[in-house]
Amino acid sequence: MSADEFDTIRTLFAPLATSAGARGLLDDVAVLEASGKLVVTTDAIVEGVHFLADDPIDTVAKKALRVNLSDLVAKGARPIGALLTLVWPDRRASRELADFARGLREDMELFSIPLLGGDTTSTPGPLTVSITAFGVPLGERVPSRADAKAGEQVWVTGFIGQALLGLRALQEAPDVIGANARDRVGAEEIVDWYRMPRPPIGFAPVIARYASASTDISDGLAADAANIAGASGVGIRIHGEAIPLSSAGHAYVSKFGARGLAELVTGGDDYQALFTAAPEHRGAIIAAARAADVNVALIGDVVEGGGVEISVVDGAPLDLNAFGHRHKLGR
Amino acid sequence: MSADEFDTIRTLFAPLATSAGARGLLDDVAVLEASGKLVVTTDAIVEGVHFLADDPIDTVAKKALRVNLSDLVAKGARPIGALLTLVWPDRRASRELADFARGLREDMELFSIPLLGGDTTSTPGPLTVSITAFGVPLGERVPSRADAKAGEQVWVTGFIGQALLGLRALQEAPDVIGANARDRVGAEEIVDWYRMPRPPIGFAPVIARYASASTDISDGLAADAANIAGASGVGIRIHGEAIPLSSAGHAYVSKFGARGLAELVTGGDDYQALFTAAPEHRGAIIAAARAADVNVALIGDVVEGGGVEISVVDGAPLDLNAFGHRHKLGR
Repeated sequence: MSADEFDTIRTLFAPLATSAGARGLLDDVAVLEASGKLVVTTDAIVEGVHFLADDPIDTVAKKALRVNLSDLVAKGARPIGALLTLVWPDRRASRELADFARGLREDMELFSIPLLGGDTTSTPGPLTVSITAFGVPLGERVPSRADAKAGEQVWVTGFIGQALLGLRALQEAPDVIGANARDRVGAEEIVDWYRMPRPPIGFAPVIARYASASTDISDGLAADAANIAGASGVGIRIHGEAIPLSSAGHAYVSKFGARGLAELVTGGDDYQALFTAAPEHRGAIIAAARAADVNVALIGDVVEGGGVEISVVDGAPLDLNAFGHRHKLGR
Repeated sequence: MSADEFDTIRTLFAPLATSAGARGLLDDVAVLEASGKLVVTTDAIVEGVHFLADDPIDTVAKKALRVNLSDLVAKGARPIGALLTLVWPDRRASRELADFARGLREDMELFSIPLLGGDTTSTPGPLTVSITAFGVPLGERVPSRADAKAGEQVWVTGFIGQALLGLRALQEAPDVIGANARDRVGAEEIVDWYRMPRPPIGFAPVIARYASASTDISDGLAADAANIAGASGVGIRIHGEAIPLSSAGHAYVSKFGARGLAELVTGGDDYQALFTAAPEHRGAIIAAARAADVNVALIGDVVEGGGVEISVVDGAPLDLNAFGHRHKLGR
């Protein structure tokens, strides 16, 4: 990347650097003013692994940001800023940079997050976008994966398996996701579920207030439930019929049965929140979710023991090992 | 990368996560306890751009960390932690992961920096390592590039052009860097200058106390001086003969003359500190550098106007444009 292109990048991204600590993107560092706890997360996305080479570049920028925002939401934290590391392929047209910056700007304005700084470099390889996001906890504690206790209930936001359905719609015959669902929501919207995760930003205060253990779902509901179970030294029992599915998801399970459900819960890239809470918070969580206009579902229980089991009415529990926990594009 | 390999990585890196906020690398986020200013920087290095595919993998880990530490030093900040984003090629042997972790561990222990967390993903492309580092300012203010004032003096730490000499020794006939120098320091050590930058960690308190403007040198002395000049709205005049060179650097200039010096000041990857300070601090800076065992040189002056000029005794100023500011491997 030439010096001129670096200057172009600075010009494109400077409008996103709305906080004083960003120093107008003209310095080597950002300076955060902090008092108390600061939640920090970093997630990278790679072309050919987490997104497709021909995904619109503005959606790539948004995905890179949102996969980090989902971590903050799941910790009950309010985003306060982000660093962008942009590893740009030599062979990718630099005019796409403007669209990348536009996409990032739209999301940063939507979620009120300033750009604090970052790094830009060229690569002979695939486009890689790494974002580090900062948040301030809204509660006294920051729920970890290790805080689940037997007797608690297990909750999840949004709809599970949407990203997998979107990816299937992109990669395979569109009718794999069910003609009914396609008629209802349109193929474009289904694809968007893959390209642009929708972390439940408005739900962070609810998690801060009521969650014991919490994580975002990046590797699939089953794998991330297993992360909580393992870190907390408990078992998690999920009722398959309680897992929230969109109409497209229901159509997929109707078509493929238990195997279809197992794919949806191991597909990954949901970027929803998975958390546990004491049973007495049940009513408050439902009321708060309604007020925040976030879909939330009670899907199971924390039990003594270990592991994750997803039961299905009138059938054997799902065989999760048959699908692996990470069968996304490249890994 | 398989789930097993992710577990391997966690096992390898967990010993580096010595602070409570890292949550044993078992959570989605890190939690920093902060009060007041926090200095944040992020720099990525890419195989084939910032390092060579056959560089020893432990030196790649160290370089990734050190290019970030140089930013903290140049801001007068003490490192308190780092996040690692490791984008690992599908085709690179996973047994190299252990050597990468060992290299990172050696440096994190050497510089007393805990690993706070990070992200790991596979890539079909080149190895890419992105680190975000956190520091606490040792002084009242965090010197930026924009704080230089006419009348101040310009200082630089270490020796300039060492990385370029190391890269030349790796890529070209070794005698390009001068037979005398090779005899004196050994080819291995010269190559190390390229592979492992040596930011002047012990010098951070001196910069915190005396520097007005400050930056690390990543794009070359000339380009980074131009960054300060541009951001501060001043000119910088550097005396070529005052630029600190190692014996190998002197040999290179003896062989190639002004052209050789121009290459050394535009070669980049020095990761030393370049700063300005009021003339009355001159004696204190020299004394503090001696106490910290850091090489520091007074190389020029901040003047009214703009731009960077490097004068040479008995000759025209260096023609910096002839070499460009970023002629490293891939950009």
